[in-house]
Amino acid sequence: MVYLTRRYRLSAAHRLHNDSLSQEENARLYGKCNNPRGHGHDYAFEVRVAGEVDRRTGMLMDLAVLDGLVERKILNRFDHMHLNLDVENFRTKVPTTENLCIEIYDLLLPYFSPACPGPDAVRLDGVRVEETRSNFFEYRGQNNSRERI
Amino acid sequence: MVYLTRRYRLSAAHRLHNDSLSQEENARLYGKCNNPRGHGHDYAFEVRVAGEVDRRTGMLMDLAVLDGLVERKILNRFDHMHLNLDVENFRTKVPTTENLCIEIYDLLLPYFSPACPGPDAVRLDGVRVEETRSNFFEYRGQNNSRERI
Amino acid sequence: MVYLTRRYRLSAAHRLHNDSLSQEENARLYGKCNNPRGHGHDYAFEVRVAGEVDRRTGMLMDLAVLDGLVERKILNRFDHMHLNLDVENFRTKVPTTENLCIEIYDLLLPYFSPACPGPDAVRLDGVRVEETRSNFFEYRGQNNSRERI
Amino acid sequence: MVYLTRRYRLSAAHRLHNDSLSQEENARLYGKCNNPRGHGHDYAFEVRVAGEVDRRTGMLMDLAVLDGLVERKILNRFDHMHLNLDVENFRTKVPTTENLCIEIYDLLLPYFSPACPGPDAVRLDGVRVEETRSNFFEYRGQNNSRERI
Amino acid sequence: MVYLTRRYRLSAAHRLHNDSLSQEENARLYGKCNNPRGHGHDYAFEVRVAGEVDRRTGMLMDLAVLDGLVERKILNRFDHMHLNLDVENFRTKVPTTENLCIEIYDLLLPYFSPACPGPDAVRLDGVRVEETRSNFFEYRGQNNSRERI
Amino acid sequence: MVYLTRRYRLSAAHRLHNDSLSQEENARLYGKCNNPRGHGHDYAFEVRVAGEVDRRTGMLMDLAVLDGLVERKILNRFDHMHLNLDVENFRTKVPTTENLCIEIYDLLLPYFSPACPGPDAVRLDGVRVEETRSNFFEYRGQNNSRERI
Repeated sequence: MVYLTRRYRLSAAHRLHNDSLSQEENARLYGKCNNPRGHGHDYAFEVRVAGEVDRRTGMLMDLAVLDGLVERKILNRFDHMHLNLDVENFRTKVPTTENLCIEIYDLLLPYFSPACPGPDAVRLDGVRVEETRSNFFEYRGQNNSRERI
Repeated sequence: MVYLTRRYRLSAAHRLHNDSLSQEENARLYGKCNNPRGHGHDYAFEVRVAGEVDRRTGMLMDLAVLDGLVERKILNRFDHMHLNLDVENFRTKVPTTENLCIEIYDLLLPYFSPACPGPDAVRLDGVRVEETRSNFFEYRGQNNSRERI
Repeated sequence: MVYLTRRYRLSAAHRLHNDSLSQEENARLYGKCNNPRGHGHDYAFEVRVAGEVDRRTGMLMDLAVLDGLVERKILNRFDHMHLNLDVENFRTKVPTTENLCIEIYDLLLPYFSPACPGPDAVRLDGVRVEETRSNFFEYRGQNNSRERI
Repeated sequence: MVYLTRRYRLSAAHRLHNDSLSQEENARLYGKCNNPRGHGHDYAFEVRVAGEVDRRTGMLMDLAVLDGLVERKILNRFDHMHLNLDVENFRTKVPTTENLCIEIYDLLLPYFSPACPGPDAVRLDGVRVEETRSNFFEYRGQNNSRERI
Repeated sequence: MVYLTRRYRLSAAHRLHNDSLSQEENARLYGKCNNPRGHGHDYAFEVRVAGEVDRRTGMLMDLAVLDGLVERKILNRFDHMHLNLDVENFRTKVPTTENLCIEIYDLLLPYFSPACPGPDAVRLDGVRVEETRSNFFEYRGQNNSRERI
Repeated sequence: MVYLTRRYRLSAAHRLHNDSLSQEENARLYGKCNNPRGHGHDYAFEVRVAGEVDRRTGMLMDLAVLDGLVERKILNRFDHMHLNLDVENFRTKVPTTENLCIEIYDLLLPYFSPACPGPDAVRLDGVRVEETRSNFFEYRGQNNSRERI
């Protein structure tokens, strides 16, 4: 079993705000991240997969396949977008980095099931999103919730 | 003469778009940075000042003074803002990183003139803004335009 | 379950020396780190916590609470100090990075117990201290000692 | 139980090519990494060990012992070499980063067995190789294959 | 005048060796970099250009033009190659990082002359190549040789 | 003319304090850096030299010569020391990073004079010291004080 971690970047605008909370509560909770017109970030995120090395190729998986999957499912959806305004899933969910991390994991997971033709020999092990250079979030799915990241 | 470079960060949303150009020209020129609702970045920027070391303190200048100046003049204006919508100067100027770099320099310059009480023994030598990890812009003012950055 | 890793820095002087060993043994064991007057480092350390995302806020925990805890319990005690001379716990214990790592973990752990009002929904998952850019230490507590970091 | 991660670097040339595949398949599989005369990389790799802190020294292990082991067993074999032409094990195995990672782990493992006089109180926990700044591989041995890295 | 620095990467194999020197002198001069079969590096290099910001676009130059130029003139020639064996200019010149730096500058310079249609409003200000994380080389051309980089 | 920048590290303890100032003034000026027992830092510093590439070797200078010079003149004096207590020159001068930067430059300069046998074909172009990841100081000598760093 070898683990491959691949790093990507996306740039997006967002605003932290929950309509069901009062303006005072939003301001206290999110501080300047609650600024009405939004602000933005360059997020780095890592996708980690696990599997056996193919004896013939010496590789865990074809990186072009992983890159294509991330391009179609993640970057096309989030990169250079305003998360609150352009992304369906963040109409009702606050686009915190925690939720972005879970979202990326959940969007990639189906493509790692055994029924999928793509990178099917490897499993999705976790997703990590860097909010800033001092703040990282990781998610490994519901079944993995008791194991260590 | 010693040079001090101090590094700051700001997070902002922006949209690259020029109203005086056609939609096709905007799309060709700015690509996905032209996305109507805006996207965002974490900008790192460096302020470089030059001066003599104070024999008594062994320091070029009091960093708290520089930090206070940058806080009041730059961060309060740009950090966690939507550059096009929240910042007066970017209503008419496209908020590219080139223009942001010149803007930061021009906003700081008056406070380094001999008439200013603050950090008056040092001069502003240049401003550098990192757009991404692979893209940097530097500006040293109009009088310095022939010298090397 | 989501994991949050937050990064802090502290600058301190220290000397590696064990009074119960001979001068020769101290010199052999610690090399130039045994220099009598001490030397110093800028340590980066990471605190990792784990918990569920709060549906209302979209956040694992309020970072200001974590920062306040680290400020009061860790930075006020170690930052800009001489570890051997200023810190009670390092009068008898050699201030190696291994021991500093365990010390930070042990100082933070009580505030993550269920009885504590602060960040009580999350648990302390581990502490990692970077001695240099090529040397890292991690500790996850006594109960976690058989699990993987 | 404390974990120590130590980081090393090696520079090497290699060519990704499998003689048992057709030229077309090699080209498709390895792209420009299949260039006949080889190209090269600066690999960073991390060795992670786990053990108890020695109460007398405050240290997990003597770093000079670990550095000596890595020097003799890894760097002398791979650093400033052409992996395909200079290294016995890569005559038959394609020198991908996956295989390099497993190779480093397997070469170090014997020296962490209980019977070995060297760093015998600590166990080898894993090896991680960075292919580029966006690509990392980790291996933890056959017995650890079900645990998380 | 604004300066733009753009960062690229290339991976290559090379061998430091001068046929006109004795084997002993080559060994003494280049150490393990003289290993007959070659070794390799991941070079990062930066291209710095200078010019006026276009008032209409807010940009110094179209990055796609610069990227295309670097792709055609530099990356296609050096990336994933064996410098000594695949590159004409290094048949007679030792492929040190100093020479690679000058080579990249000289290959790009013609495209920044006034007669050239491409990025003709900007001038090439300098090229910097990182050999390792601790070693950088910069070249600014023959006419600039007395000015500071 | 090619420029070579080489990066080194040193770890030291220091205390910012000027005996000729009152305790209140010291406290106000240096804040927690005035802590009586000292604290410490890992300083990174860069030495930049300039010269012509030797046609025979393809190199600006022998790095082993530069490393040896820095080892003897800088590291042996400052590394793993308490700057105020172990270093003659900092008995009377406050060991700020500004003063450390000038000190390193002045200590290296004599070895780059034409009369010196060592690295005599190259000149010392500047020294840069990183205090933290956000704070850098540069010095280029008295004669260079009007030129740009």
